[in-house]
Amino acid sequence: MYKLGPSLMCADLGNLEQNMKELDKAGVDFYHIDIMDGKFVPNFTLGPDFVKTVRKLTDTPIDVHLMIEEPERHIDLFVDCGVEMISVHQESTQNLHSLLSRIKNHGIKAGVAINPGTSLEFLDNVYDLLDYIVIMTVNPGFAGQKFIPTMYRKIAKVSEIIKKYNRNIEIQVDGNIGANTIPKCEENGATMYVLGTSAIFNSHHTLEENVALTRKLFNHETK
Amino acid sequence: MYKLGPSLMCADLGNLEQNMKELDKAGVDFYHIDIMDGKFVPNFTLGPDFVKTVRKLTDTPIDVHLMIEEPERHIDLFVDCGVEMISVHQESTQNLHSLLSRIKNHGIKAGVAINPGTSLEFLDNVYDLLDYIVIMTVNPGFAGQKFIPTMYRKIAKVSEIIKKYNRNIEIQVDGNIGANTIPKCEENGATMYVLGTSAIFNSHHTLEENVALTRKLFNHETK
Amino acid sequence: MYKLGPSLMCADLGNLEQNMKELDKAGVDFYHIDIMDGKFVPNFTLGPDFVKTVRKLTDTPIDVHLMIEEPERHIDLFVDCGVEMISVHQESTQNLHSLLSRIKNHGIKAGVAINPGTSLEFLDNVYDLLDYIVIMTVNPGFAGQKFIPTMYRKIAKVSEIIKKYNRNIEIQVDGNIGANTIPKCEENGATMYVLGTSAIFNSHHTLEENVALTRKLFNHETK
Amino acid sequence: MYKLGPSLMCADLGNLEQNMKELDKAGVDFYHIDIMDGKFVPNFTLGPDFVKTVRKLTDTPIDVHLMIEEPERHIDLFVDCGVEMISVHQESTQNLHSLLSRIKNHGIKAGVAINPGTSLEFLDNVYDLLDYIVIMTVNPGFAGQKFIPTMYRKIAKVSEIIKKYNRNIEIQVDGNIGANTIPKCEENGATMYVLGTSAIFNSHHTLEENVALTRKLFNHETK
Amino acid sequence: MYKLGPSLMCADLGNLEQNMKELDKAGVDFYHIDIMDGKFVPNFTLGPDFVKTVRKLTDTPIDVHLMIEEPERHIDLFVDCGVEMISVHQESTQNLHSLLSRIKNHGIKAGVAINPGTSLEFLDNVYDLLDYIVIMTVNPGFAGQKFIPTMYRKIAKVSEIIKKYNRNIEIQVDGNIGANTIPKCEENGATMYVLGTSAIFNSHHTLEENVALTRKLFNHETK
Amino acid sequence: MYKLGPSLMCADLGNLEQNMKELDKAGVDFYHIDIMDGKFVPNFTLGPDFVKTVRKLTDTPIDVHLMIEEPERHIDLFVDCGVEMISVHQESTQNLHSLLSRIKNHGIKAGVAINPGTSLEFLDNVYDLLDYIVIMTVNPGFAGQKFIPTMYRKIAKVSEIIKKYNRNIEIQVDGNIGANTIPKCEENGATMYVLGTSAIFNSHHTLEENVALTRKLFNHETK
Repeated sequence: MYKLGPSLMCADLGNLEQNMKELDKAGVDFYHIDIMDGKFVPNFTLGPDFVKTVRKLTDTPIDVHLMIEEPERHIDLFVDCGVEMISVHQESTQNLHSLLSRIKNHGIKAGVAINPGTSLEFLDNVYDLLDYIVIMTVNPGFAGQKFIPTMYRKIAKVSEIIKKYNRNIEIQVDGNIGANTIPKCEENGATMYVLGTSAIFNSHHTLEENVALTRKLFNHETK
Repeated sequence: MYKLGPSLMCADLGNLEQNMKELDKAGVDFYHIDIMDGKFVPNFTLGPDFVKTVRKLTDTPIDVHLMIEEPERHIDLFVDCGVEMISVHQESTQNLHSLLSRIKNHGIKAGVAINPGTSLEFLDNVYDLLDYIVIMTVNPGFAGQKFIPTMYRKIAKVSEIIKKYNRNIEIQVDGNIGANTIPKCEENGATMYVLGTSAIFNSHHTLEENVALTRKLFNHETK
Repeated sequence: MYKLGPSLMCADLGNLEQNMKELDKAGVDFYHIDIMDGKFVPNFTLGPDFVKTVRKLTDTPIDVHLMIEEPERHIDLFVDCGVEMISVHQESTQNLHSLLSRIKNHGIKAGVAINPGTSLEFLDNVYDLLDYIVIMTVNPGFAGQKFIPTMYRKIAKVSEIIKKYNRNIEIQVDGNIGANTIPKCEENGATMYVLGTSAIFNSHHTLEENVALTRKLFNHETK
Repeated sequence: MYKLGPSLMCADLGNLEQNMKELDKAGVDFYHIDIMDGKFVPNFTLGPDFVKTVRKLTDTPIDVHLMIEEPERHIDLFVDCGVEMISVHQESTQNLHSLLSRIKNHGIKAGVAINPGTSLEFLDNVYDLLDYIVIMTVNPGFAGQKFIPTMYRKIAKVSEIIKKYNRNIEIQVDGNIGANTIPKCEENGATMYVLGTSAIFNSHHTLEENVALTRKLFNHETK
Repeated sequence: MYKLGPSLMCADLGNLEQNMKELDKAGVDFYHIDIMDGKFVPNFTLGPDFVKTVRKLTDTPIDVHLMIEEPERHIDLFVDCGVEMISVHQESTQNLHSLLSRIKNHGIKAGVAINPGTSLEFLDNVYDLLDYIVIMTVNPGFAGQKFIPTMYRKIAKVSEIIKKYNRNIEIQVDGNIGANTIPKCEENGATMYVLGTSAIFNSHHTLEENVALTRKLFNHETK
Repeated sequence: MYKLGPSLMCADLGNLEQNMKELDKAGVDFYHIDIMDGKFVPNFTLGPDFVKTVRKLTDTPIDVHLMIEEPERHIDLFVDCGVEMISVHQESTQNLHSLLSRIKNHGIKAGVAINPGTSLEFLDNVYDLLDYIVIMTVNPGFAGQKFIPTMYRKIAKVSEIIKKYNRNIEIQVDGNIGANTIPKCEENGATMYVLGTSAIFNSHHTLEENVALTRKLFNHETK
């Protein structure tokens, strides 16, 4: 089983509705929206008004990825947009347990995102609150970066931890996900794939064709 | 003389290209794009990718309004998007002179935005670097707020200061600009109008019609 | 007309209820409670639980003085304690207008406190939102400091500004208020007096006697 | 062996002296005082003046729990109040070793407090400086929260680490400590119990009775 | 009367002692040392160890210019180096009165430095604590910038304010001070001149010769 | 094999060139320069101008140790000085992988420095980017502190981790390195030694003699 989630920051922002119609038709499993604050990462992207627009256009689950400092202050802002999933960065808070609890108390799925240089020990203390773990496979902030090879091992390690606790937690991979990286991510246990310019938002084919081509990269037996 | 600038944060973000075609056809004078960081104002909006999309769709000047902390760090990010104007908040920096100089050194227009509670004395020290002054006529952060009446007097005061220094500086007004507020803003000296839901992004008429209706609010002799 | 407000940070914290009974009997006009965060001032004092305790013990108006960074984040915390007045520091926010509006929207009185080195120009932009202005007559953070003599002139200046705008705004003085300073404060226009160790919380007399002695320091014709 | 410490933030703040007389008579082992800064946790509580008042009223050891950012800046402020124990949060500093050394250099006991989501690996580098470890069994900031069940395992883990290093370090538990949680905390190795509304500050019995009832929750052989 | 102060950040840092011998022989009036923190200005320079080295080498007064955030925290660090003068930036503190008092309580001279874009209104509230006012005539942070022409008028304004209050306050100018700018600075009232690469630290002449040449730029009647 | 690196913060700052001539003659292996920002550590030291001076005086490799917050912002500033090595603190960033990548992209060596209380787990995620690991053997900020004995075990642990990954990573020790501590550091695997007042910058002998005496402390077979 795997899930495909286009990263809307990479969509054609002039024709979002058209893009989303094609993607919905292609049967994508979720939409991924990055929120940046210029501090946690040195860039800015989208906000609640954009998320609300996406909500009006689709019933596909929306996954908001908060790359911001003090996410505690802004959870409600995004919950109010009607999203199904919110992930926060472990590095952005000194009380991850409280933050994840707050997300889950709204009845939506909670994820933790971890930068490439961040250790996994903390999972021991919050696994019971997690619906998904986002492994950043590039350093966050900008599109177009190279996959960091040691991240395959990290995916495998997270898989083991999840098995150890016998929990139903998804592993999301985010960053340079495409033909060159998907097979090995799948092999190591990733189940949710954030898709940007490396996989579907490029001009070689239509969005629908790109989603179909991406599907072929997975082991046929898994879905 | 007055200039009209739609605030793209209020556009239909699912169909931006279509919106902009109509607005360009209606002859708007500039596009206004708000950037927020969740700290200077408790909200998030858009980013460089959005600004680049807008740039590809039009030759109309783009005006970026930075509602962020430490704007010094992010000027280049927006200059690289090919914009014509950047405004920064007086309250967001401890060295406004340096910040404005940096914008102007890129060959683009520099503006200073001031919150409703901020005094005007500082203008004495930076007027020689300013192309425009943005008077926030609502408290920044969210659309849909009420015009603060004491701001009319502030517009008038800024007009006087500009005359005293005999400079060619525009006065931009931003916040709840529409039928109820435009005449008195014009009367007090405002020359650039940021237009959101109060004037053109509402469903009563087409965007073109709304721009035309907005034009009628101005004193005919001025344009 | 003048109002007397004991600063409860200087009360006998072991026997607050008893202290307050005496003070209420003596007819004090309000209770002043300082909140500190270790950042805006390098000290800590009291919090919402203390304010709620005070509320249960009296119907006398409670005046909360927020000496904290980012007061925007904590207004609701204190409003929920049932207080009648909240003052915030001009130096602690980059959007005083928005902050004062938020306090007033709760139906309580809003004040602005200003440190000894802070200028008064900003009052021009917020006078319509103010119920009282707190002139710090010592540098805030700790009890037991000396009154700064140039503050008398500042009280007079604020009196003039209030008259110019023809508003009903009270002038509160806070810091080393006692026999040596009250007459000249009154002469310059102060109307609310925060009373600490210099006036009533000392062991020379009972609290009731100290309040009575303090009353004698005022010009008899004013009350 | 176990120690009982009432959390004075939950006492009757109008009659602290009376409360403390009863508690001292009941033979409590220490007083716990929470200090908050509105940033590390979104609340405010008490400060040095309160701690000094407590000091004057009792010879029972005082334990100050700093839930504040940059605790380095405020250690002296609390040491000067004459306390016996200070705990700081691991999450609040980037140099815990230096911070603990500073506390111990004053000749008082040093503790580290850890939020529910925080890992224990760091203990390897500071165990030689620790007199006690505070396991937050709820997310800090407000009274009245539910005990997090995975914290029992954490207490056990800390017990093992302490044994491994063969050190005399106490384990303090803080958050929703009462009839439902004490037995299992004791079983896993906790030795110091911070007592709030769940155990002794409630109106079902007198403070003395509540302390007595709490004592019965412990395994008789341990004390 | 005017005073010359070499800015040691511009000295030959490999041979400071030799440089200072020549400068002392030339009769300079003070040494100026810039301290930067990478935040208030985006650069780093020197620290207490350097200041102590300078102190050992000379009896000439040392003037430390703190271009740092939260200068309150570091005053003692520099006072302990045995300096005669410390200036802090108005923009770096929310309680300038308290900060200047703290410097003066150590028995040394206190100055306030103001960035080019900063207004002068605040002087009304602190003039009684000031020994000197530093007018930044370039934007601070790096050597080698151009004098900002509107700063001449600012010097004149400050001169007037000082006269109005009839105080003995010096006016220091800092930034691109040399042959092209000294005469007009003097004309407008500057009395202390910070000298860097524009005046004396260049290779055209020896340091002694450069000091002598700089003296000739002043109106002979003033010294 | 071991390398000796004088810490220039401890040199005679009045006669740096002379000091460096002697040290170069004595054959030191690198120069260590500490940069502090007053926030990450409560002190200030040196900056780019000093580093550039050192660069002009020697071809010996320069090692810059950034004890600053947000080192991401200042890497270029020091790279531009022509240094060969830059180390950053693990505690100072939430994205160490990205930060080390940035240093290495400039073609220079990247190191990570770790405070005494910091755990080593994070090395698993960045070992492929590291040229050296700096073990702080005292708490950073000031010269003259005592070596923390548990740091010997930490050196040994790091040695093991490096062997496990079979990488060529040097172990640098920094803090009170001298006759009493070098032998045991070497025994546990340290390869680079930062030398301050404990080893060579003291007046008992000339710098050359001190370097020679320091060399004798090492096991002869290792070099």
